[in-house]
Amino acid sequence: MTLTEHFEVVPDPAAGAAVKAADRAHVFHSWSAQGLIDPLAVAGAAGSYFWDYDGKRYLDFSSQLVNTNIGHQHPKVVAAIQEQAAKLCTIAPGFAVDVRSEAARLIAERTPGDLDKIFFTNGGAEAVENAVRMARLHTGRSKVLSAYRSYHGATAAAINLTGDPRRWPSDTASAGVVHFWAPFLYRSPFHAETEEQECERALRHLEDTIAYEGPQTIAAIILETVPGTAGIMVPPPGYLAGVREICDKYGIVFVLDEVMAGFGRTGRWFAADHWDVTPDLMTFAKGVNSGYVPLGGVAISAEIAATFDTRPYPGGLTYSGHPLACASAVATINTMAEERIVENAAEIGERVLGPGLRELAERHPSVGEVRGMGAFWALDLVRDRATREPLVPYNASGADNQPMAEFAAACKQRGLWPFVNMNRTHVVPACTVTEAEAKEGLAILDEALTTADAHTV
Amino acid sequence: MTLTEHFEVVPDPAAGAAVKAADRAHVFHSWSAQGLIDPLAVAGAAGSYFWDYDGKRYLDFSSQLVNTNIGHQHPKVVAAIQEQAAKLCTIAPGFAVDVRSEAARLIAERTPGDLDKIFFTNGGAEAVENAVRMARLHTGRSKVLSAYRSYHGATAAAINLTGDPRRWPSDTASAGVVHFWAPFLYRSPFHAETEEQECERALRHLEDTIAYEGPQTIAAIILETVPGTAGIMVPPPGYLAGVREICDKYGIVFVLDEVMAGFGRTGRWFAADHWDVTPDLMTFAKGVNSGYVPLGGVAISAEIAATFDTRPYPGGLTYSGHPLACASAVATINTMAEERIVENAAEIGERVLGPGLRELAERHPSVGEVRGMGAFWALDLVRDRATREPLVPYNASGADNQPMAEFAAACKQRGLWPFVNMNRTHVVPACTVTEAEAKEGLAILDEALTTADAHTV
Repeated sequence: MTLTEHFEVVPDPAAGAAVKAADRAHVFHSWSAQGLIDPLAVAGAAGSYFWDYDGKRYLDFSSQLVNTNIGHQHPKVVAAIQEQAAKLCTIAPGFAVDVRSEAARLIAERTPGDLDKIFFTNGGAEAVENAVRMARLHTGRSKVLSAYRSYHGATAAAINLTGDPRRWPSDTASAGVVHFWAPFLYRSPFHAETEEQECERALRHLEDTIAYEGPQTIAAIILETVPGTAGIMVPPPGYLAGVREICDKYGIVFVLDEVMAGFGRTGRWFAADHWDVTPDLMTFAKGVNSGYVPLGGVAISAEIAATFDTRPYPGGLTYSGHPLACASAVATINTMAEERIVENAAEIGERVLGPGLRELAERHPSVGEVRGMGAFWALDLVRDRATREPLVPYNASGADNQPMAEFAAACKQRGLWPFVNMNRTHVVPACTVTEAEAKEGLAILDEALTTADAHTV
Repeated sequence: MTLTEHFEVVPDPAAGAAVKAADRAHVFHSWSAQGLIDPLAVAGAAGSYFWDYDGKRYLDFSSQLVNTNIGHQHPKVVAAIQEQAAKLCTIAPGFAVDVRSEAARLIAERTPGDLDKIFFTNGGAEAVENAVRMARLHTGRSKVLSAYRSYHGATAAAINLTGDPRRWPSDTASAGVVHFWAPFLYRSPFHAETEEQECERALRHLEDTIAYEGPQTIAAIILETVPGTAGIMVPPPGYLAGVREICDKYGIVFVLDEVMAGFGRTGRWFAADHWDVTPDLMTFAKGVNSGYVPLGGVAISAEIAATFDTRPYPGGLTYSGHPLACASAVATINTMAEERIVENAAEIGERVLGPGLRELAERHPSVGEVRGMGAFWALDLVRDRATREPLVPYNASGADNQPMAEFAAACKQRGLWPFVNMNRTHVVPACTVTEAEAKEGLAILDEALTTADAHTV
């Protein structure tokens, strides 16, 4: 019996209508035109599913915002939160606390190399903010290089680093950020034809950009190990090692952002483990505790930590190392290890999702490329496989975005909640997803993709 | 019987040593030189107290970072967290959820004027980040004016607005921020001799600064309603109304930051209620749920919300409107109303803390000024009452800060955990503090102040 089957889903449309009415009266939503949205009222969730007040269940192929790696309402994490709530909900960052120490130890045990000091934040954006601050103060330099096709969060420093259109309205304060192009063979910025060529040209492009920006002005290079929302572009072999070499050559801090890719998503604890690369700073959030309580952080190398041994680190926040959040991280990490959830993500990717999605691509002309690993996959949808023209233009809205809107609606109608961005759907279920659930989702995608096929040339 | 008496404090020094050892091995602390700190290991907390592993109890006159307005481990809030944990820990911001709707409604019910739409964040810094973004997009202008002697958070935009030395190391990215001087009669920037004069001159200074910066370049003025960490300077009557008028005159968005002053701290739900001033945006965090789960937000006026009715608001975060956080806010607000906790803060300030602190000032030459309201008080400590020379220089450290370090140590030795900043100690107990607890704290302050007296001229 799965976790979901424990829950009885009792329809209560009147309650749902009340929740939605109160929402529309008082809740201001992220990334939205407030007058044009119609948020679904959610009544509950368990494992790989959530459901609404009409009793309709959705298979969650989005993991919300790619954060519920352990699935919804894992009983061990819920119990840990309840126990910690009874003991100590909050305490200031200046104190030592058992669960804070233990969460830091469990994370440090898994991070690569000597990234053994953990600075906790409330989420990914603040993690990136602090990583950038550490890099700037450690090097005494100001510029940070980041990639187009990236997402790093929505506070000022984090959104300026982001390489998607959500940055544009906040660009007034983009002091000291330079964007470059990272490798992506399917839409190669470098006109490459092989992974090897893409890797070599991307590294050359990066080093040229550094030369023209002035190496001595650059504090850090930040990259998502596997870019997430921007399209799940698995880097070619050798790329991250090449960036590591370039950073060493010029004394630049190498930051890997594992907010979305970390904690099992790619089938390893950290995506960096696939390529044995050790950055100087690594940011995390989401999967660290599946977002059950807001938590993020930065794992810090010994060398950078030493910079702040006698010089105060000028950053902090009221809820740094929040006990309730740390307790949920301890339970999440221990449970993921005990239940082999990271291994499950790897296996489901290798054996079910990868082959299943590639099989869909064979039958659906709208699927231009399937890419990913673990529980982290993207279908790049196209109007024309030959030209690779995206199914909708970059940053489309309204009528221009109709083909993707139709595809999303077709999924939802059939009980699948998809993650949709630009011309892509990401297949990012919980890392606990079973073979049966994965196949249920693949079958729905198979049906929904016919709507996309109708828009191909 | 008080809440604390329910807890048996059992010493366990070996456990404390282990917690501290793991902390030193792996936890990177806020605002600290990592090699020079010696964090106290905290074993538990209840009501107005917390305790360490040696069984020593501390009366918490800091409310941690001035956030546990409802005291530690309030059973109703703990129960609400446990119930919500069992039901639904996390869901993406795009959905409607009962506790998110209800938290927004309860907050909107209390905010002044038409600040009826709530954008949730994880804490105060992100609230300020988003308020500034809203103001910039609403006005199409870029500059933001904020005060010296202020604290607004530690992400890039928030720290640039901050008017204390913690801003300096992050000043590289301070695009578009201009600092001005707010009223503070005891150390008047305007050489005023009365509250009335201070108010009039501060408004003139602000309007002159606006004239020279260019009104049409200024998106917002942000002020803490009662500045907190910077010194609890209660504004003179008329000042905030005057700022409101100036903002209206020039089409500038008025942001009040109530992260520390809000939710009962000053003896009203919001500090703005003391002066019947309605800003356009109001930021909150801390007291909204006493920090039991990370939560903050922005209350938005109808006019600014309307700007984003058909135009997407370009900001968001994975945990916006986090169900566990919202459930704790619902329980906190309802409990504060039921148990008249805001009224308790007002009364304890009026009847016990205010008179008690003024009485201490009479006997201790080191106390230059007592100021505050509710459960929000500062003692401004001086070397010389005549010249008002601070007991330690601005931003002192090491030997220069010795008099304040001695004072803090004297408090802790006697079982009082003080809030200390620069030459001040803030008296900021839980809003649930009893008369007996307040008097216990005053008695300890009385003894500890003799160490400060020894440094007067």
